[in-house]
Amino acid sequence: MDQRNISYIDRAWEHLDRLTKPPRSLGRVEDIAAILCEIQQTDTPKTKPRSVLVFAGDHGVCEEAISAFPQSVTGEMLKNMASGGAAVSVLSKLHQAKLRVIDVGVKLPVDQSFAGVERHVIRAGTRNMMKESAMTKAEMEQAIEIGKQIVQEEAAQSAKLIIFGEMGIGNTTSASAICAAILQCSVLEITGRGTGLDNAGLQHKISVIERAMQTHADQLTDPYSILTCLGGFEIAAMVGGMIEAGKHNLIVLLDGFIVSTAALIAASADPVARTGFLAGHVSVEPGHRQILNHLRLTPILDLNMRLGEASGALISLPIIDAAATIYNEMATFESAGVSSKTTS
Amino acid sequence: MDQRNISYIDRAWEHLDRLTKPPRSLGRVEDIAAILCEIQQTDTPKTKPRSVLVFAGDHGVCEEAISAFPQSVTGEMLKNMASGGAAVSVLSKLHQAKLRVIDVGVKLPVDQSFAGVERHVIRAGTRNMMKESAMTKAEMEQAIEIGKQIVQEEAAQSAKLIIFGEMGIGNTTSASAICAAILQCSVLEITGRGTGLDNAGLQHKISVIERAMQTHADQLTDPYSILTCLGGFEIAAMVGGMIEAGKHNLIVLLDGFIVSTAALIAASADPVARTGFLAGHVSVEPGHRQILNHLRLTPILDLNMRLGEASGALISLPIIDAAATIYNEMATFESAGVSSKTTS
Repeated sequence: MDQRNISYIDRAWEHLDRLTKPPRSLGRVEDIAAILCEIQQTDTPKTKPRSVLVFAGDHGVCEEAISAFPQSVTGEMLKNMASGGAAVSVLSKLHQAKLRVIDVGVKLPVDQSFAGVERHVIRAGTRNMMKESAMTKAEMEQAIEIGKQIVQEEAAQSAKLIIFGEMGIGNTTSASAICAAILQCSVLEITGRGTGLDNAGLQHKISVIERAMQTHADQLTDPYSILTCLGGFEIAAMVGGMIEAGKHNLIVLLDGFIVSTAALIAASADPVARTGFLAGHVSVEPGHRQILNHLRLTPILDLNMRLGEASGALISLPIIDAAATIYNEMATFESAGVSSKTTS
Repeated sequence: MDQRNISYIDRAWEHLDRLTKPPRSLGRVEDIAAILCEIQQTDTPKTKPRSVLVFAGDHGVCEEAISAFPQSVTGEMLKNMASGGAAVSVLSKLHQAKLRVIDVGVKLPVDQSFAGVERHVIRAGTRNMMKESAMTKAEMEQAIEIGKQIVQEEAAQSAKLIIFGEMGIGNTTSASAICAAILQCSVLEITGRGTGLDNAGLQHKISVIERAMQTHADQLTDPYSILTCLGGFEIAAMVGGMIEAGKHNLIVLLDGFIVSTAALIAASADPVARTGFLAGHVSVEPGHRQILNHLRLTPILDLNMRLGEASGALISLPIIDAAATIYNEMATFESAGVSSKTTS
């Protein structure tokens, strides 16, 4: 994996410039096609089969009333996802992506579980990061391992592209804290309204995040310590999954703020993980654009979305399909007998 | 058609706000869903079946060497489209859209024709607009009628969505002149590099357009006169098609600069045509953004594309599909038993 053949991207551009269109006239779609060749180390990029892996967990910091929705919604939405009613469910089906919903720490009523939801529960929700570490080091490592294992299973089944998704009421609070710690920027500029806080709610959320960061100030020194202190289980599982994906030349199509926070940790911990990333969209959450800038990723879509669940990535997915199809199926000037440019 | 039921859009928003997601969290995808309901006057928007109608014509102004590609490419690409090798061919197939390629005025060697290309040739290319009117009024009306007829056929076969596309070496020159005349802005600010002119080529193209506009100065008074003087046949056919589409509540997903120039004429001539428009993307050609601003359309994609052929619209098409699917298939808070917002 350390000896990636850099010439794949050069060969990709040579091929793209032979296709029956003015050179570079498909703009970013051609950029994406070339990147697919580089990620997969191939001359025939493929985007199927693909899987959507939604990790779900609850957040102890919900005790501080930082969300517009009650914590019970995490579990309720888990059920909705598995039974086909959520945005991620209908979009996965529309775009022929396998959907797996994985509970890594949802706070459910005793013994409640849902058909179609895989249970790898580490704990029924993280601890309240404002008062104590969201998880123990052992719990963080356990979540990472679960993510790795799930992606290993996908790689074994020949997946070419992975979309990570998440569900967890309160997780923009956790993600904002993580981003502020890793990017070393102010909580104020990185924190947004999540599922729909008003101005007073946003102010309160910012102050909760600032207090959490003070609580753990001397431990926010490396990505894994930051993850351990500030949560959540679903973010940690995605970090593991992304690191594993990097080992299998998988395309990782990023969703919104939470998924990109996991990408930020994964790329900080293991630069190989970064090589597979494409940014599906940029969310309304202000921290998202900052993460993408830091990772030098240009989002494909900017459609004012902020749902999460993998929805933004799924809406961008057919553009990745189009890029691969153009690369693999278009005729060349030579094969089609089309004259090329006469002037420059 | 004049008594559109305005309440469809209000009902659409009520429905969208009941779906299991924070209100408005899918951003522009929700806007699109609501617009689909309004265009189709329905509570169950549909995006299939759909057709891509590519109209092709040659331009007499190519005598003035205003394109980076030779005029023979129009015919060569027509063959390539019909035989499956062009961008529009592979994207139509990928997205389950019927592709029709219609020759309304390509300058082909005598008796040459291609299987799969429909021939409704008005004349083998327009006249050189710099010296004389690109077409006669009768030819313009004939092209409009062909476009109407083709869309009537699609409507009769229950098409729900139409994508117009075009092929015609030299047609950004024609379109730039038309836009400058209708929008009354300078040729300099509206004219781009087309398939790839260098700086000197661009300067020459601008001067050719300015001279053409001087030639016809006293006739550039209404959309149809402008179209007659400045061409081309493929643009006129699309104008007719768009006006007809408006009569059938069809969604018209616009492509790039040339298609949007036809949309500008259609909307100027018949305001009902405008009601079905969605803008798939914004092209690199500087005139395109000006047309979209004038029509008050916000492009879905901005991916640095400038190919034409319907390619930009086709790349945006799955986002329209996603909007309809979300609208039709997602569960409501009530049906899924998910709690709603607690704070605002």
